[in-house]
Amino acid sequence: MKILVINPNTTASMTRKIGAAARSVARPDTQIVATNSQDGPASIQGFLDVATCVPGLLEEVAHHPDVDAIVIACFDDTGLDAVRSLVSVPVLGIGEAAYHAASMIANKFGVITTLSRSVPGLEHNLLRYGLAQKCSGVRATEIPVLKLEEGDPATLDKIRTEIRAAIDQDKAEAIVLGCAGMADLMAQLSAEFGLPVIDGVAAGVTFAEALVSIKLGTSKIGAYSTQ
Amino acid sequence: MKILVINPNTTASMTRKIGAAARSVARPDTQIVATNSQDGPASIQGFLDVATCVPGLLEEVAHHPDVDAIVIACFDDTGLDAVRSLVSVPVLGIGEAAYHAASMIANKFGVITTLSRSVPGLEHNLLRYGLAQKCSGVRATEIPVLKLEEGDPATLDKIRTEIRAAIDQDKAEAIVLGCAGMADLMAQLSAEFGLPVIDGVAAGVTFAEALVSIKLGTSKIGAYSTQ
Amino acid sequence: MKILVINPNTTASMTRKIGAAARSVARPDTQIVATNSQDGPASIQGFLDVATCVPGLLEEVAHHPDVDAIVIACFDDTGLDAVRSLVSVPVLGIGEAAYHAASMIANKFGVITTLSRSVPGLEHNLLRYGLAQKCSGVRATEIPVLKLEEGDPATLDKIRTEIRAAIDQDKAEAIVLGCAGMADLMAQLSAEFGLPVIDGVAAGVTFAEALVSIKLGTSKIGAYSTQ
Amino acid sequence: MKILVINPNTTASMTRKIGAAARSVARPDTQIVATNSQDGPASIQGFLDVATCVPGLLEEVAHHPDVDAIVIACFDDTGLDAVRSLVSVPVLGIGEAAYHAASMIANKFGVITTLSRSVPGLEHNLLRYGLAQKCSGVRATEIPVLKLEEGDPATLDKIRTEIRAAIDQDKAEAIVLGCAGMADLMAQLSAEFGLPVIDGVAAGVTFAEALVSIKLGTSKIGAYSTQ
Amino acid sequence: MKILVINPNTTASMTRKIGAAARSVARPDTQIVATNSQDGPASIQGFLDVATCVPGLLEEVAHHPDVDAIVIACFDDTGLDAVRSLVSVPVLGIGEAAYHAASMIANKFGVITTLSRSVPGLEHNLLRYGLAQKCSGVRATEIPVLKLEEGDPATLDKIRTEIRAAIDQDKAEAIVLGCAGMADLMAQLSAEFGLPVIDGVAAGVTFAEALVSIKLGTSKIGAYSTQ
Amino acid sequence: MKILVINPNTTASMTRKIGAAARSVARPDTQIVATNSQDGPASIQGFLDVATCVPGLLEEVAHHPDVDAIVIACFDDTGLDAVRSLVSVPVLGIGEAAYHAASMIANKFGVITTLSRSVPGLEHNLLRYGLAQKCSGVRATEIPVLKLEEGDPATLDKIRTEIRAAIDQDKAEAIVLGCAGMADLMAQLSAEFGLPVIDGVAAGVTFAEALVSIKLGTSKIGAYSTQ
Repeated sequence: MKILVINPNTTASMTRKIGAAARSVARPDTQIVATNSQDGPASIQGFLDVATCVPGLLEEVAHHPDVDAIVIACFDDTGLDAVRSLVSVPVLGIGEAAYHAASMIANKFGVITTLSRSVPGLEHNLLRYGLAQKCSGVRATEIPVLKLEEGDPATLDKIRTEIRAAIDQDKAEAIVLGCAGMADLMAQLSAEFGLPVIDGVAAGVTFAEALVSIKLGTSKIGAYSTQ
Repeated sequence: MKILVINPNTTASMTRKIGAAARSVARPDTQIVATNSQDGPASIQGFLDVATCVPGLLEEVAHHPDVDAIVIACFDDTGLDAVRSLVSVPVLGIGEAAYHAASMIANKFGVITTLSRSVPGLEHNLLRYGLAQKCSGVRATEIPVLKLEEGDPATLDKIRTEIRAAIDQDKAEAIVLGCAGMADLMAQLSAEFGLPVIDGVAAGVTFAEALVSIKLGTSKIGAYSTQ
Repeated sequence: MKILVINPNTTASMTRKIGAAARSVARPDTQIVATNSQDGPASIQGFLDVATCVPGLLEEVAHHPDVDAIVIACFDDTGLDAVRSLVSVPVLGIGEAAYHAASMIANKFGVITTLSRSVPGLEHNLLRYGLAQKCSGVRATEIPVLKLEEGDPATLDKIRTEIRAAIDQDKAEAIVLGCAGMADLMAQLSAEFGLPVIDGVAAGVTFAEALVSIKLGTSKIGAYSTQ
Repeated sequence: MKILVINPNTTASMTRKIGAAARSVARPDTQIVATNSQDGPASIQGFLDVATCVPGLLEEVAHHPDVDAIVIACFDDTGLDAVRSLVSVPVLGIGEAAYHAASMIANKFGVITTLSRSVPGLEHNLLRYGLAQKCSGVRATEIPVLKLEEGDPATLDKIRTEIRAAIDQDKAEAIVLGCAGMADLMAQLSAEFGLPVIDGVAAGVTFAEALVSIKLGTSKIGAYSTQ
Repeated sequence: MKILVINPNTTASMTRKIGAAARSVARPDTQIVATNSQDGPASIQGFLDVATCVPGLLEEVAHHPDVDAIVIACFDDTGLDAVRSLVSVPVLGIGEAAYHAASMIANKFGVITTLSRSVPGLEHNLLRYGLAQKCSGVRATEIPVLKLEEGDPATLDKIRTEIRAAIDQDKAEAIVLGCAGMADLMAQLSAEFGLPVIDGVAAGVTFAEALVSIKLGTSKIGAYSTQ
Repeated sequence: MKILVINPNTTASMTRKIGAAARSVARPDTQIVATNSQDGPASIQGFLDVATCVPGLLEEVAHHPDVDAIVIACFDDTGLDAVRSLVSVPVLGIGEAAYHAASMIANKFGVITTLSRSVPGLEHNLLRYGLAQKCSGVRATEIPVLKLEEGDPATLDKIRTEIRAAIDQDKAEAIVLGCAGMADLMAQLSAEFGLPVIDGVAAGVTFAEALVSIKLGTSKIGAYSTQ
């Protein structure tokens, strides 16, 4: 099967990291097409970026009509409803996929994201998906998305600090990494803290494979109908 | 004061009707600037239109920097969070304003909107605003937005049928008209059914005046900060 | 238009302050009639005062039959349902009005009130209005209502301490001043903390003006019917 | 022990019926003092009656200082918070007691009350108590409270019709009789419909006995403190 | 009347303590039959114990067919739904009974339990009963159930520490003791902290007496039907 | 990988059907071990069966220690928390898996199950998982589980009737088949009604594969810890 993984920002280095993360978990016979918006914000942090990245995202969808599933590789699940209205294959946001995965392996999960101003958008998503009650809290590291790309050790330490607080203070039993740019940290942090650490790209790709395997696509009656 | 009322679709006849509705309720010293997106969908029905109308909406905001408040005249409150992230004046969606008005004059309100596929988006908004529990139900007339412009008597009859059902079956005590294109029906239907009927344009403009009068603007810390 | 602003306690100095706050934000052509209960508690703090102030409040309503709107100037919104059952003009509680105003300019708002024993009543109101999920928390300063009248600088410092905590710990993006006796602090604290600070009297009066402008009154079917 | 059962309306025939219902379930060594307000509405239907009956209710409380528990025999639980703020013995509303009893013997319970305009107040109570999710619906018979006193067979038929609908349509597994004036129907309707039918007076009195037996009174810190 | 009080673990010393607590609050004419599972876990801490103790619990129910009510004396309310499906007399869990009692005497109650891994199960119960919103928090002392039997003074100190935190930090107005093994501490801690302290065995037995007195049993239509 | 699929009832014909459904969707390199309880109820309908099937289920878990994931093939997700407390591999209930799958392809999903007395248990699960708000309703066909095994055409017609009602009345956009015994109907009904129809066995097996692929297991801190 062919899965389109769209990074809705324009930063190609993130797209490469996302593509690598996707391929490292996909089945041997799954083809990952990793792409990014050609136009729009370089990173997605807060409501304005969420809104302005959508046209570029929709264009990527239009350019790849022959795919079996689509993964939107932005943790805000930006444009998710709009893309679902356009196609009939399964469409997953990496935030949404990560929350669902976490819900099936832990009683409560914590989310570690980038800037404080991204937190309300994630909280709105959790409310809409119904999973707010499974979430012990969304914590911001105050690391901008693109800073994650630089590989600064201080960055990882800030993430560690918030994971520790999520476990000790919020009683999180699993951790969701709230940014596509953290996709490479899943294994390392899971070993270090002794609990499941979930990357949305991994969850999104494997759940997309699961849905395609059982021939489920986006419902075309009601919310996502085209009539 | 100067209030920018933006119709985020491109249908100029709707913009004229919205502008007239706004002016008919505004204070004598309020200047209404009614405008619409130059580019985007002709009407907004469902998630895809909601997403694609945002760039045109943001452009209108950018073209009118010297206003005291902004009203987004689409009942889906499209782009509301994004516009709030751009400016520091008050920004109101007409859906949001109508729900708040209805909450202050009735125990439960019903919403009458256009197509079924617009209902889930409105329900998401009600959930986010916290006002879902005040809403007795969102009912669709299955009249497309632009059909409302034609003044067909059969159209009004469909609206009447759903208002009657909202009162009798859902126990609505007030009715919110869920489309900017219904702005001219408020007085007539209120008299006919003997209960408050609320148009979002009217509520949005007068609430904007209220907030400006008491010097309240959009908070610039947290969700709508620019940092 | 004529707006009746009723202080449901018997402290005339508070009524004067409330009346001044109301007039300072009202339109030039709005007449503010500020009055208070002739009989009942001197301040309203906790459930017992809320109940016992109602007869005096209803008498004031009965003495002023020819008004266009009524504002109940007690942050507990005491007697709100009862007054709505008596009249067909709009009736707003200043707590309710402040929460709605705050909901339209910030993602989350904090409330600063007087005594701890007033907190549960405010939380019940937020739950009923649906706006509990927009509230980051209700904080008590432990300053009795009448102490606010004395203008002691230590009083203001306690309010400042709780506002700071609401912003830093609770992530409030706007502050609602939870007592009619704080009506004169809105501008000063807003400037000082760099975020919207909302006084319920100001919100109640201007929202009442808005509802009257668009000819909306209390629904007389269902909860507030007289049959 | 001595239990004060207060009918907060002024209709003595209802008080006699309530007193008889209370005595018929009380322990042999429990003394029931049944009284009613000396001043106020003749029946309590809707928000206005709920508010205006409180002074008379509080006077009855003040006249009977030496009781072990208080039951407020109005299904709206009128004045419950105020009375709790006055005393340190247990105080139960018959609505509240009936909902708690129903919650312990059925998965979902339905409520049958008098007029439609009483429904919103009951729904607010259920929301506050947390028990709305256990309630399959509140149904109005449109029988005024005092009409119940007349013993008209048509009255009982209306109650039967709504019980049947609650079972068949709402999936109620138990029925709560939502008016003190229905206290004598509990056994008859339970036998007839083959499911538990709960009268609030019976639940209130026996739960009061239970709380007194285990030396529990109203908490005097927080919401019901007097400081 | 005869009330069967079942300790669903196999520790006879706990059963004796539970039986004594039950008898100390029961009416003179109530016969308490205190028993425990013959087979299963020695204490119930976490989901695995909750599940594995059920067969032993159901056997005890089957061995005592001629009782008027059943109290399940495990704070997790283990097997509650299953036992209700087996019998038509009232069946109360001590957790459930304690939460309902606390809801009627305080605005918010805190729960003090044994191990952290028992907390999620209690939170699930509170959610199901609808009473989560009345609960200010569930706190774990990290004292294993059987350690409570040893009467170590350090044990009581840990309980005191958490009660203090529940009052000061969580604003609890009453305390529910979240383990049948704490049944003997109710009076002492209530006096010490000046607020109601509730033991589930006491609440369960007296509420069972109340329900039997008014002839209410488990509904046999719907969730607990046998058809 | 090796996935243990446990039918917690003792009906071998259902186990064969479940095993076949599992194998038909599993990856080529996934080994499905389909088994059932050796002791317990022949079908699981209502709370009593849910409780009594757990010992047999736990024994099957103990007999198969070397598996990579476990799927509990009963739509009530019976014993889910207990099994998670026993192992560290992923454990999925087929109800839970189906709800999560449905949530990712539709705005609202309906559930079609067997007997009415199974409905409350499913509703409790949806509440706990947070997904009640995504569910448009749970409908019972009143077909006993084992009747499904007989292949009677009238049985399928009853299922069809409820699916039609779920779409038309409840606005379901996808259908979840609420019984492991319906596993073979997924494709047929999906084609017939033109919307996604989800079988929990298919969802459970493929989601288990997804979680194993990305090395996620049950969290062993908090709710499912063994300490």
